[in-house]
Amino acid sequence: MKKSLIALAVLAASGAAMAQSSVTLFGVMDVGVGHSSGTNSVTGLTNGGLKTSRLGVRGVEDLGGGLKAGFWLEAGINADTGDGNKNGAYGGGLQFKRRSTISLMGDNWGEVRLGRDNAVHYNNLLAFDPFEATGSGSLMKNQITGIDDRKSNTISYFLPSNLGGFYGQVQYIFGEKAGSAAPYNTNMTNNGDGYGVRGGYANGPLNIGADYMKIKKNALSDKDPTKASSALLQDAEAYSIGASYDFGVIKPFAMWSQEKAKSEGGLPEKKYQMWLVGLTAPVGPGVVRFSYNDLRNKSDNAPNDKSKQYALGYVYNLSKRTALYGTYSHVSNDGVAARGTGISGLSGITIKAGESVNAYEFGISHSF
Amino acid sequence: MKKSLIALAVLAASGAAMAQSSVTLFGVMDVGVGHSSGTNSVTGLTNGGLKTSRLGVRGVEDLGGGLKAGFWLEAGINADTGDGNKNGAYGGGLQFKRRSTISLMGDNWGEVRLGRDNAVHYNNLLAFDPFEATGSGSLMKNQITGIDDRKSNTISYFLPSNLGGFYGQVQYIFGEKAGSAAPYNTNMTNNGDGYGVRGGYANGPLNIGADYMKIKKNALSDKDPTKASSALLQDAEAYSIGASYDFGVIKPFAMWSQEKAKSEGGLPEKKYQMWLVGLTAPVGPGVVRFSYNDLRNKSDNAPNDKSKQYALGYVYNLSKRTALYGTYSHVSNDGVAARGTGISGLSGITIKAGESVNAYEFGISHSF
Amino acid sequence: MKKSLIALAVLAASGAAMAQSSVTLFGVMDVGVGHSSGTNSVTGLTNGGLKTSRLGVRGVEDLGGGLKAGFWLEAGINADTGDGNKNGAYGGGLQFKRRSTISLMGDNWGEVRLGRDNAVHYNNLLAFDPFEATGSGSLMKNQITGIDDRKSNTISYFLPSNLGGFYGQVQYIFGEKAGSAAPYNTNMTNNGDGYGVRGGYANGPLNIGADYMKIKKNALSDKDPTKASSALLQDAEAYSIGASYDFGVIKPFAMWSQEKAKSEGGLPEKKYQMWLVGLTAPVGPGVVRFSYNDLRNKSDNAPNDKSKQYALGYVYNLSKRTALYGTYSHVSNDGVAARGTGISGLSGITIKAGESVNAYEFGISHSF
Repeated sequence: MKKSLIALAVLAASGAAMAQSSVTLFGVMDVGVGHSSGTNSVTGLTNGGLKTSRLGVRGVEDLGGGLKAGFWLEAGINADTGDGNKNGAYGGGLQFKRRSTISLMGDNWGEVRLGRDNAVHYNNLLAFDPFEATGSGSLMKNQITGIDDRKSNTISYFLPSNLGGFYGQVQYIFGEKAGSAAPYNTNMTNNGDGYGVRGGYANGPLNIGADYMKIKKNALSDKDPTKASSALLQDAEAYSIGASYDFGVIKPFAMWSQEKAKSEGGLPEKKYQMWLVGLTAPVGPGVVRFSYNDLRNKSDNAPNDKSKQYALGYVYNLSKRTALYGTYSHVSNDGVAARGTGISGLSGITIKAGESVNAYEFGISHSF
Repeated sequence: MKKSLIALAVLAASGAAMAQSSVTLFGVMDVGVGHSSGTNSVTGLTNGGLKTSRLGVRGVEDLGGGLKAGFWLEAGINADTGDGNKNGAYGGGLQFKRRSTISLMGDNWGEVRLGRDNAVHYNNLLAFDPFEATGSGSLMKNQITGIDDRKSNTISYFLPSNLGGFYGQVQYIFGEKAGSAAPYNTNMTNNGDGYGVRGGYANGPLNIGADYMKIKKNALSDKDPTKASSALLQDAEAYSIGASYDFGVIKPFAMWSQEKAKSEGGLPEKKYQMWLVGLTAPVGPGVVRFSYNDLRNKSDNAPNDKSKQYALGYVYNLSKRTALYGTYSHVSNDGVAARGTGISGLSGITIKAGESVNAYEFGISHSF
Repeated sequence: MKKSLIALAVLAASGAAMAQSSVTLFGVMDVGVGHSSGTNSVTGLTNGGLKTSRLGVRGVEDLGGGLKAGFWLEAGINADTGDGNKNGAYGGGLQFKRRSTISLMGDNWGEVRLGRDNAVHYNNLLAFDPFEATGSGSLMKNQITGIDDRKSNTISYFLPSNLGGFYGQVQYIFGEKAGSAAPYNTNMTNNGDGYGVRGGYANGPLNIGADYMKIKKNALSDKDPTKASSALLQDAEAYSIGASYDFGVIKPFAMWSQEKAKSEGGLPEKKYQMWLVGLTAPVGPGVVRFSYNDLRNKSDNAPNDKSKQYALGYVYNLSKRTALYGTYSHVSNDGVAARGTGISGLSGITIKAGESVNAYEFGISHSF
């Protein structure tokens, strides 16, 4: 006999003792039919065009006195093939690479969270992209080594939610590289430690937020040049600022982001700037989404390396949990640029320098 | 504190609003003690002798107006070792390789389903094998490349269930190979697209069904002979017809299946024919299962390559969810044939051409 | 909408029919900040310092007449990075390597359990280590090949719980190596079969237990010397005896364990002896834990190879499910010994022969 995990909102609300031990099995299944063309073209099933397919377990325990403990395990899924999705790759088993955290939360003082989690920079990009950094319309990001969507071994402090709209997060990221004693060549393939901060103000129709994040190089790599190829050799920095305002009939978004690494150890500077404008707007029974973003390599002595992307989509909600959607995305590459769209689930798409890329996908997304 | 996911059938039935958001955690644990002998012999713990061990999550949402959304994630488990089971292999992590789908369903028009799912041909074999293609008594199948139990990147349409016993499924399978533009050698290791259709009639004691399925070769492989070894180079076809009739005291089964690939590109024809007769019958407190199947290589110029299998089993139900079972299976190989039984969980069994193989297993199977 | 799996203890207790089909989703998230120093030092996030991070599903079905069926699937998690944890390793997908079993249980006659499970020797070590073989204070163990915490392909019988405090387990472990027929080189990389027995007496404040376990060598490896490097070439044995007594203000523990392999096939004897004394004691609002253990290589002609470990910790319970904890552990190595502490989640720590190792960790552990 199968057991149904029935939504017991009424029961849960009526008994405080019961609410104290909630555990929630949750997820998203999102699959579409899509096409992407560059040098060649591929048609097939896409994954996570509206919301990234995932499976997770999370829970909160009320410890009394305004104190709570919580945990969150969330694994990506390649819903078109059934694989676990580890940082976007196909072919592996289920891993909680989207989030694996434990938290201690106080009503008045906020939250301390440990584990693998979104990087602050990614949190800010997510907030001000009409496509929420997901699917073929996802914004362009992560141009330099060390800047990733998520980081393992983080410890974060979040401001409480009762500050009249002000929000904030401080994050420390352990590189967990071996320390300064000899031999120097142990475990030197990883980064140094990192940290980040994000803050903003969200009240009524307005949301404005900014972040700064730094991942330090592996200081030991200087001492063992044989490890140089895999270690982070330059401090990586990222920062962004974004805003949105919900006028009701239209909600415009704007964002600016930079990623950079200073010239050091004989390695050249790396600097990439991206800006985005976009909107969401209720049209008919659904919501239109549009974004335009422009990414440029602004490093010293950089070749011509520019990409522009625009994306247009429509989301038709069948219920609060289920939607049909369609998205079209176009990337124009200039010079040596060969960037693609954010479409997921199609492989083997090759793109030549300077070539344009088109992608569209029509799918169904179901949250549970 | 542990949470019990209690079966709330009564509650669910009484409240339509609750039924709208059912999520079910389900699975099977099935482990036995078994033995298989060919050239050598192995005794040990077997996996999934009655029902394949698995863990899954599925759900249905009522969207109103006869429309429903549903999802299904189902991962195989090697219950004797704790590994995830990916297409029968040991040693990997949990993957939803048995099924990973999202569906839109209409009471009157049927179901559209996207994701990784059973191939139509496998659905028909399952229906008419007394051992349900599972355990040491499983029928012989999948003789040519491209014909598999399950396929990723599928889109299926199923007829509704209100057609007086008629059922049907049409399935399209994206190969997701890169398109026709140069360079040709990108992503050419996979198949071309495929499609299949299955239909039948199940009413009262009678069930009769047939299927046809084709997986197209990778057309690009002609252009890049260096990829020839891994790409599908011949269109693969499979079809079967089966029937069963439940007389109450005995339920006989009969099935005929063919897999073939035409001679092309200098490659020889491949053709395999299999037929099966079997039965289930309530005997004492349980059910007897028996099958006999005969598989022959009927390709042009094929060497003598025949295998015959018979399997006999007994299932003793301790409850609707839990059963004890025993199965004996014997394969006689002729000529160059070296096929084994379907026993799972024992490794290192070698079989020489023309050798007979015996396997038995005694296990316990529990569905949850 | 998310479904909450509410604890329905009341409902479950009131309805026998409901209790018959309980399925429990359970787990532990345990993350800390820790430091370990040997030749070098690493600071970062640690995993499972108090209880091993895990995710599992288990259930029991009442079959009537005092008979029950049960299953248990439990996967380790690297909570600091989100990976599945396979036998302590990082980087893989979720696997039920902690436990994957199905059981048939009788109120009067005990339990038969099949699948992957704790080895009897590990069960006895767990019971008499104040740190429960977990985290930086975990006792030293598993010095010879073939002796592991857990084994796949096991079948166990457990005495029932109504024997006035006496408990016992007999375990058989299938090596699942190919049998005696030629060719000999098939599947010879694994062990031979094994077996173990554990028994004891736990009543009121007293617990005393002992075990014996043997993993047989792969007898075929003599016949194929090319496989010698990966096959178990000497029978491995382990045994231990332990006791604890809860005086209320203090609960002392004592344990002695030996692992050995006789000299055979030209290979030298291996013999390691370990003893441990420890205690737990309620102090203030929490519990103090302390252990001292001494491990020596007692093989014939062994070099000086001794390690001594002491560990001191404090556990502060925020609730029955959630605790804060701190542990300090120190290992002194003598001669060629280079053993570390049990700290988990920090990599790249190197230890030179004879060097001392320190580790501490402060964490939060939450069971659900």
